[in-house]
Amino acid sequence: MYKVDLNSDIGESFGAYKMGDDAAILEAVTSANVACGFHAGDPLVMQKTLTACARRGVAAGAHPGYPDLVGFGRRNMKCTPDEEYADCLYQIGALKAFCRANGLVLQHVKPHGAMYNQGAKDAALAKAIAQAVKDSGEGVILMGLANSEFEKAAAELGVPFAAEAFADRGYLPDGSLVPRSQPGALIRDVKAAAARVVRMVVEGTVEAIDGSVIKFRPHSICMHGDTPEAVEMAKAVRAALERAGVKVTNLKEVVWG
Amino acid sequence: MYKVDLNSDIGESFGAYKMGDDAAILEAVTSANVACGFHAGDPLVMQKTLTACARRGVAAGAHPGYPDLVGFGRRNMKCTPDEEYADCLYQIGALKAFCRANGLVLQHVKPHGAMYNQGAKDAALAKAIAQAVKDSGEGVILMGLANSEFEKAAAELGVPFAAEAFADRGYLPDGSLVPRSQPGALIRDVKAAAARVVRMVVEGTVEAIDGSVIKFRPHSICMHGDTPEAVEMAKAVRAALERAGVKVTNLKEVVWG
Amino acid sequence: MYKVDLNSDIGESFGAYKMGDDAAILEAVTSANVACGFHAGDPLVMQKTLTACARRGVAAGAHPGYPDLVGFGRRNMKCTPDEEYADCLYQIGALKAFCRANGLVLQHVKPHGAMYNQGAKDAALAKAIAQAVKDSGEGVILMGLANSEFEKAAAELGVPFAAEAFADRGYLPDGSLVPRSQPGALIRDVKAAAARVVRMVVEGTVEAIDGSVIKFRPHSICMHGDTPEAVEMAKAVRAALERAGVKVTNLKEVVWG
Amino acid sequence: MYKVDLNSDIGESFGAYKMGDDAAILEAVTSANVACGFHAGDPLVMQKTLTACARRGVAAGAHPGYPDLVGFGRRNMKCTPDEEYADCLYQIGALKAFCRANGLVLQHVKPHGAMYNQGAKDAALAKAIAQAVKDSGEGVILMGLANSEFEKAAAELGVPFAAEAFADRGYLPDGSLVPRSQPGALIRDVKAAAARVVRMVVEGTVEAIDGSVIKFRPHSICMHGDTPEAVEMAKAVRAALERAGVKVTNLKEVVWG
Repeated sequence: MYKVDLNSDIGESFGAYKMGDDAAILEAVTSANVACGFHAGDPLVMQKTLTACARRGVAAGAHPGYPDLVGFGRRNMKCTPDEEYADCLYQIGALKAFCRANGLVLQHVKPHGAMYNQGAKDAALAKAIAQAVKDSGEGVILMGLANSEFEKAAAELGVPFAAEAFADRGYLPDGSLVPRSQPGALIRDVKAAAARVVRMVVEGTVEAIDGSVIKFRPHSICMHGDTPEAVEMAKAVRAALERAGVKVTNLKEVVWG
Repeated sequence: MYKVDLNSDIGESFGAYKMGDDAAILEAVTSANVACGFHAGDPLVMQKTLTACARRGVAAGAHPGYPDLVGFGRRNMKCTPDEEYADCLYQIGALKAFCRANGLVLQHVKPHGAMYNQGAKDAALAKAIAQAVKDSGEGVILMGLANSEFEKAAAELGVPFAAEAFADRGYLPDGSLVPRSQPGALIRDVKAAAARVVRMVVEGTVEAIDGSVIKFRPHSICMHGDTPEAVEMAKAVRAALERAGVKVTNLKEVVWG
Repeated sequence: MYKVDLNSDIGESFGAYKMGDDAAILEAVTSANVACGFHAGDPLVMQKTLTACARRGVAAGAHPGYPDLVGFGRRNMKCTPDEEYADCLYQIGALKAFCRANGLVLQHVKPHGAMYNQGAKDAALAKAIAQAVKDSGEGVILMGLANSEFEKAAAELGVPFAAEAFADRGYLPDGSLVPRSQPGALIRDVKAAAARVVRMVVEGTVEAIDGSVIKFRPHSICMHGDTPEAVEMAKAVRAALERAGVKVTNLKEVVWG
Repeated sequence: MYKVDLNSDIGESFGAYKMGDDAAILEAVTSANVACGFHAGDPLVMQKTLTACARRGVAAGAHPGYPDLVGFGRRNMKCTPDEEYADCLYQIGALKAFCRANGLVLQHVKPHGAMYNQGAKDAALAKAIAQAVKDSGEGVILMGLANSEFEKAAAELGVPFAAEAFADRGYLPDGSLVPRSQPGALIRDVKAAAARVVRMVVEGTVEAIDGSVIKFRPHSICMHGDTPEAVEMAKAVRAALERAGVKVTNLKEVVWG
């Protein structure tokens, strides 16, 4: 039986500022990437978010980002691998404490925004991040772009890795994402997106923007939760997967089940 | 055989800003209170500080403070107990990750500055902080002012507590510290300070500013490390204790040894 | 002819975080208190906010707050008068630059949240803030609670002062606001609020919560803009004032017109 | 008579953290670049720094940097021109308020660290920064690397520009600085550095690292102030210039005198 995890970024509110509809998205996903206070989130938000994860039975992961709240961690920064290691370990440790306080075990780490994009292409950064994941605890999974430097760094360090795919993004023939500035970057049709995800999981393939077929079978599908449409998409993808006989379950069970 | 711990605040540098002579003070103390990034310290400094603790065999504790870097955590802030709980748990978790990465186990938590002073007098804040210590892990010790709300909160929640005394501060007859704005607040004479500490540990008493004698036997003595004089005082206190046959050892051994 | 200003806090978004419906509230008010980046707002938000003020012909003021973004400047902090002076002057100067860049002149300064509440009662803080207003430029008006320490400090330093009243808040017999924790703190009925404002401006009186009548004639009425109801209230108050023959105009004209 | 300005970065302390010996360097230079709170400095430090400038008769400029306190503004960040414009205008405005409060007029703006290095090579960023300087007030001078994008942007926008040279840095044949990672980047010999500066000012030339001679005559020489050696260098350069009959005076007089 095929299995796949659905993940979403949550816990992105900050102080008086609200972002996303976490309650709604938690009904659709099996793993949550929780902001850790650098690019979004704050300690009180983290506590409430973990309590919500525990209540809904959603597995929790850390979502570390650059120390750039005003830029939401989306702006590239030139950090050294040592800085990146320490920034990640700090954020993972903080989130792990909220997991423990809510009776959960930290399942995974998925870097956010510019940290994700830069690490996917930079071997030294990817290795620094993978080392932080390793040093944060036994069995914590690094989630990242399939076929990226993250995957190589995880293999090298013996860190469990989960390959992530995107329901609503187009792919280039080499397996990378179509940049947002180009046509075909976004798939807005809910049915088409759901069908693509089913094919990825069941057949292990996805059609690239040029019509070629790429082979890959993701452990987890990234769903967005910041708009009502995104929540609808998440629910549709889940329903399509279940109709196709795929077990939608958390990352731990997909990776080790 | 009498035992006592010597503690000092370290890891207070931040980015390009250097503070304190951590290398020197680590030679004199047995436990270190490590800043966690809110009032001082940053992730890279935390990593280097824990590496130094591990190398010197000094036990490490978290030193959480208010989110007030420009005020160095010394300005009172009106936080709710929920905010205080979350701010503490966040910082403790972050530090714990650096402990683990350096082969250490988090020994204790000592609140910093205004958080220490406000919590010592406010039952709700003290309880929130003690709860964060409890939720951060088994056996983590809360260090705080003797006879304060921290001691009561720790007892109520079943959190191990360590009473702290100050080598270089005068005491009022009720056991509280003479405010810094009043005469007798500071004891600058190294020999006098060392003799007071020996008496606290061996006889379990200290002479208050009015000549009356207060009973208390501290688990740990707070040494400062931000000036050359402070490092001298720390070494003198340690030498005097050892001459008096007191075993100077880390907090864990004092509390449970 | 009676004149009064209507003011509202705007520009409280931060990075990716949106707050308030500034476009809607700018249609109802004559003066805007613009967040300056410490408790809310960021440089890019400030630039956009001033551009919107210039386009709508709304007079702009600085809305400085405590350096506490996660607490939205609502938590009391124990700052020294020197710190408060410098924090205010910094924020006022920053906002003034955006005024100039958009062809506007800084009209006023209204402290935010805990800085407003603490300054209203503390003579030293009020004086520090008034001094910052004075040092920021000729003719800048300090807006604050009527009969507060702000009013005294402004008089002492020769800074123009504007007394502020609240459309939707109950008053105690001494002219202070009914605390939010007590019954009668909030007036939710739009018509009642509008009638109260008209009476304040035309008769110079307001009925306190115990039925007694307090004398005072405000220069400006504070409207909230963070909910659709608040925008409705602002429009209703403005309409009621205009029906009563009151000229609704910016603070400068009210104070000096 | 030849004239030249000597500038140095000051006001880089932050809260309890001290950096540099501002009092000593203020005796040697004629213009000061004052940190504005983003990469270094805080409002109280800015106030004290401007008071010191006023007392010593040193002209004051803003030294805006990236919002990266932990990285001291030295890490490249990918900001948009709009963000850069707003971040600069904010910081310049804040500093200008402290100038006014101390009876000074803002003389110049010199971007800091990564903002300086990225802007020197990127036309869009340079233009955004020059626009912020222009919008901050009449006659404010933009100081930057000679022959850089800053010089072009200033010319295009009609902003007065001052070319800066470095006493202690080697030059490549194209007029750019030898990167710090390469041999010849730093000139540690005080006499050699002083002689180079005199030649730049009097002859309008400097010898590049390959022995070729570059033509350029700087308006200002950058002196460092963060070490005792740097202060010595500054004094030696000043003395050598005065012996050579060069008038060492502030930037305004050099540019317009």
